[in-house]
Amino acid sequence: MAARIDLNADVGESLGSWPMGADAELVPLVTSVNVACGFHAGDPLTIVRTVRLALDHGAAVGAHPGYPDLVGFGRRAMDLAPDELEATVLYQVAALAGIARAEGGRLTHVKAHGALYNRAAVDPGVAAPIARAVARLDGSLRLVGPPGSALLAAGAAAGLACLAEAFADRAYEPDGSLRSRRLPGALHLDPAAAAAQAVDIARDGRVTAFDGSVLPLVADTLCVHGDTPGAATIAAAVRRALAAAGVETRSPDA
Amino acid sequence: MAARIDLNADVGESLGSWPMGADAELVPLVTSVNVACGFHAGDPLTIVRTVRLALDHGAAVGAHPGYPDLVGFGRRAMDLAPDELEATVLYQVAALAGIARAEGGRLTHVKAHGALYNRAAVDPGVAAPIARAVARLDGSLRLVGPPGSALLAAGAAAGLACLAEAFADRAYEPDGSLRSRRLPGALHLDPAAAAAQAVDIARDGRVTAFDGSVLPLVADTLCVHGDTPGAATIAAAVRRALAAAGVETRSPDA
Amino acid sequence: MAARIDLNADVGESLGSWPMGADAELVPLVTSVNVACGFHAGDPLTIVRTVRLALDHGAAVGAHPGYPDLVGFGRRAMDLAPDELEATVLYQVAALAGIARAEGGRLTHVKAHGALYNRAAVDPGVAAPIARAVARLDGSLRLVGPPGSALLAAGAAAGLACLAEAFADRAYEPDGSLRSRRLPGALHLDPAAAAAQAVDIARDGRVTAFDGSVLPLVADTLCVHGDTPGAATIAAAVRRALAAAGVETRSPDA
Amino acid sequence: MAARIDLNADVGESLGSWPMGADAELVPLVTSVNVACGFHAGDPLTIVRTVRLALDHGAAVGAHPGYPDLVGFGRRAMDLAPDELEATVLYQVAALAGIARAEGGRLTHVKAHGALYNRAAVDPGVAAPIARAVARLDGSLRLVGPPGSALLAAGAAAGLACLAEAFADRAYEPDGSLRSRRLPGALHLDPAAAAAQAVDIARDGRVTAFDGSVLPLVADTLCVHGDTPGAATIAAAVRRALAAAGVETRSPDA
Repeated sequence: MAARIDLNADVGESLGSWPMGADAELVPLVTSVNVACGFHAGDPLTIVRTVRLALDHGAAVGAHPGYPDLVGFGRRAMDLAPDELEATVLYQVAALAGIARAEGGRLTHVKAHGALYNRAAVDPGVAAPIARAVARLDGSLRLVGPPGSALLAAGAAAGLACLAEAFADRAYEPDGSLRSRRLPGALHLDPAAAAAQAVDIARDGRVTAFDGSVLPLVADTLCVHGDTPGAATIAAAVRRALAAAGVETRSPDA
Repeated sequence: MAARIDLNADVGESLGSWPMGADAELVPLVTSVNVACGFHAGDPLTIVRTVRLALDHGAAVGAHPGYPDLVGFGRRAMDLAPDELEATVLYQVAALAGIARAEGGRLTHVKAHGALYNRAAVDPGVAAPIARAVARLDGSLRLVGPPGSALLAAGAAAGLACLAEAFADRAYEPDGSLRSRRLPGALHLDPAAAAAQAVDIARDGRVTAFDGSVLPLVADTLCVHGDTPGAATIAAAVRRALAAAGVETRSPDA
Repeated sequence: MAARIDLNADVGESLGSWPMGADAELVPLVTSVNVACGFHAGDPLTIVRTVRLALDHGAAVGAHPGYPDLVGFGRRAMDLAPDELEATVLYQVAALAGIARAEGGRLTHVKAHGALYNRAAVDPGVAAPIARAVARLDGSLRLVGPPGSALLAAGAAAGLACLAEAFADRAYEPDGSLRSRRLPGALHLDPAAAAAQAVDIARDGRVTAFDGSVLPLVADTLCVHGDTPGAATIAAAVRRALAAAGVETRSPDA
Repeated sequence: MAARIDLNADVGESLGSWPMGADAELVPLVTSVNVACGFHAGDPLTIVRTVRLALDHGAAVGAHPGYPDLVGFGRRAMDLAPDELEATVLYQVAALAGIARAEGGRLTHVKAHGALYNRAAVDPGVAAPIARAVARLDGSLRLVGPPGSALLAAGAAAGLACLAEAFADRAYEPDGSLRSRRLPGALHLDPAAAAAQAVDIARDGRVTAFDGSVLPLVADTLCVHGDTPGAATIAAAVRRALAAAGVETRSPDA
């Protein structure tokens, strides 16, 4: 049986006159995208254009909700009450779902952004409101999160199909966590390193951690970052390496 | 044939810790509501609660999109380019449509707010992007606007069903325009006056202007404001007067 | 030697069309005010008008900076990096200082708001950037904080004069902390209770905690809240009771 | 008598994670800068760092206030009432003035941004609140605006010293207005063309318009844009050409 994996990227992270990322180059290389929803990045026109771009290239369109904090780009944790958080996620995902429909497509998945993703990975009190918001809007949406996380547990409890996510271009610590962006070596800027890690995960279900140890790591979707230098080059290298290794890149909704 | 009219109110105009309006008293008295979408007023939790309140009372739920200007409450006109405006309206209406669905209801109509409503009434270049946004999201949504306005013309051109709106508690000028809020006598704060005007419009298709002249005014929906002092008292008086005059109050979607 | 205390209130917490508080009634009753700076509440015109009101009544004008979160009213803690926090406080206090000068007065003190105040009370990593921002702008500004807090320690370390603050209308726990707003009995809504507590603190340097125990509590300034029901009535009762007890109410800058 | 001119650039236009402009290269080349104030661009930390950078290079520090519209980058005109506009400008300039002082410098001038600059150039009702705000904060601040504009007239009426501004890298129409950015040829992307225009204005008080006609144009300060491609290259060419032509580049406050 042939291996298969989804390749995702966070896109639509520009804001008005401020560009971010290289969406036009990156979108054709991935099989699904997570579109910023206007709270930590993105604005209505950027969202509409990004959704169009994704649909034009056949990428599955997901929502990428975050904390309401443009200046902090959603990377500063905020203490929202559970009902506030649920409504905040519901609002963002609903906006994206409607825009996807207006553009002739549909929303397929939801992946939290930045500090919200990180908190939801470990805190069931943050994970549950996210999962509830998604399930209440549309029970057919898939929820993306780290393998074994509180977020995926909450998604399953809410009856959602879940996608375990790994990273092609981020280094892992021996305990399976991502190496902090503040530490050296956190990012694989070398396309060959990212490509090798992608193959290890997708074909063999394992990853070599920063200290050289080898860990099991089973994932449904692989993220390539759009805001790292040379993002499109890395994504292209990952895609080529996966093909060469006999791994099919395909969205679960394709 | 019995006369019939929709009775609408702008609701959900609170923001976080700042309450506005008397939604809990007003919503049971009207047949449809226009919910602020978070750009000029409203926040995700306020929107969710307001939609719930409306659905609990059987009111038709509409979106009330505005300019992105909280401090100005959407009453300061902004020069958005047509594609920016279309995306801005689409985003807001999409968010409301999803939230209405998540709460077990559906969105039935769209009414622009404040300066956006006023501009769209007279400027086809502002009206068209609004109509396009609504039609692209869901062609079954009704578009609310002043009778004979550029907004309703744009709605018709976009294939939308339209609702001509009149005001129970605002004075009219002899030319059929609303008397400016900056002038004395712009608002009917006396419930009896608002009720009498409501009956004139709903049963007889006419209104007595500020100077005493009588104008034809045919409307599908009558607005009672939620932010005027004694809003609920006015709405109750309007509703009673309409019933006494044999006018049925009902949403077109009921 | 006669006892003397400052009486302060948080004001200027309206936002555009959303009023909050009863500033017009409260300001004449207090000796200093803390004006919201536009990040968690307040907008430029509200700030200008509030500063004018305070100066007209001879109240000392302070800045009341908060987290950048209008929807959460600055009550949701946010993880700002130290340099971000320092700049965020500096910006807000600088805006207020300039507006006070433009209105013919001067800024005399700074009191953090909401979650920022609460975090800075216990976390030196939050307190230090606040103190640094104030000291860098103007070393003659006084820093307000809870007695014995990390915030006042940071203020002293930065060379600032500090004002220990107690609350007339909040209940205290036996350990000297404020009783959580989520618990019953957190607020003294009875003006007589608030007035009695004010006298206990100002004249006798002690407070009766929620469980009946008596604690020492020495303060330079007493806060009366503007957003509690009957705020002005409470402030008036406090002021009368202090006068009757021979305690002079005066700003340290008067 | 030797010719002399100020060379200014709009800087600090980044927002949180979104960089804009090439401030680090541009600031050493100009004699004064206009720092975005957080309403249309800029955030507290960006502002602090930009002010530091300017002071480190001996550039005169000015405030660059704009409409409250991040998504529109202050390029979408907004209908603010005169008192709202005055307070909005006062707040922004006050914040910058305080930050400049906290960094060991002082604010020397104010230049409105984008749609606010354009409106104030022709509309006395927009110009007057800006001038009043600046004069009330600090009567020694200089006001920057187009030669012969309503903005400079308002500045003079408010008792402010004014600086007439011309552009090195924008094409002029025969009537002395700037060629619209939407038309071809609006920007001089060729450093030699910008440099030649700078010399014509600074030394000879004239400019060659887009149609080849020569107009008188007397200016106190020349703007080089930071957001055009190759901004620093253009600024360097302008500076060299001015020096070669015997024109001293110096801020009026140097």
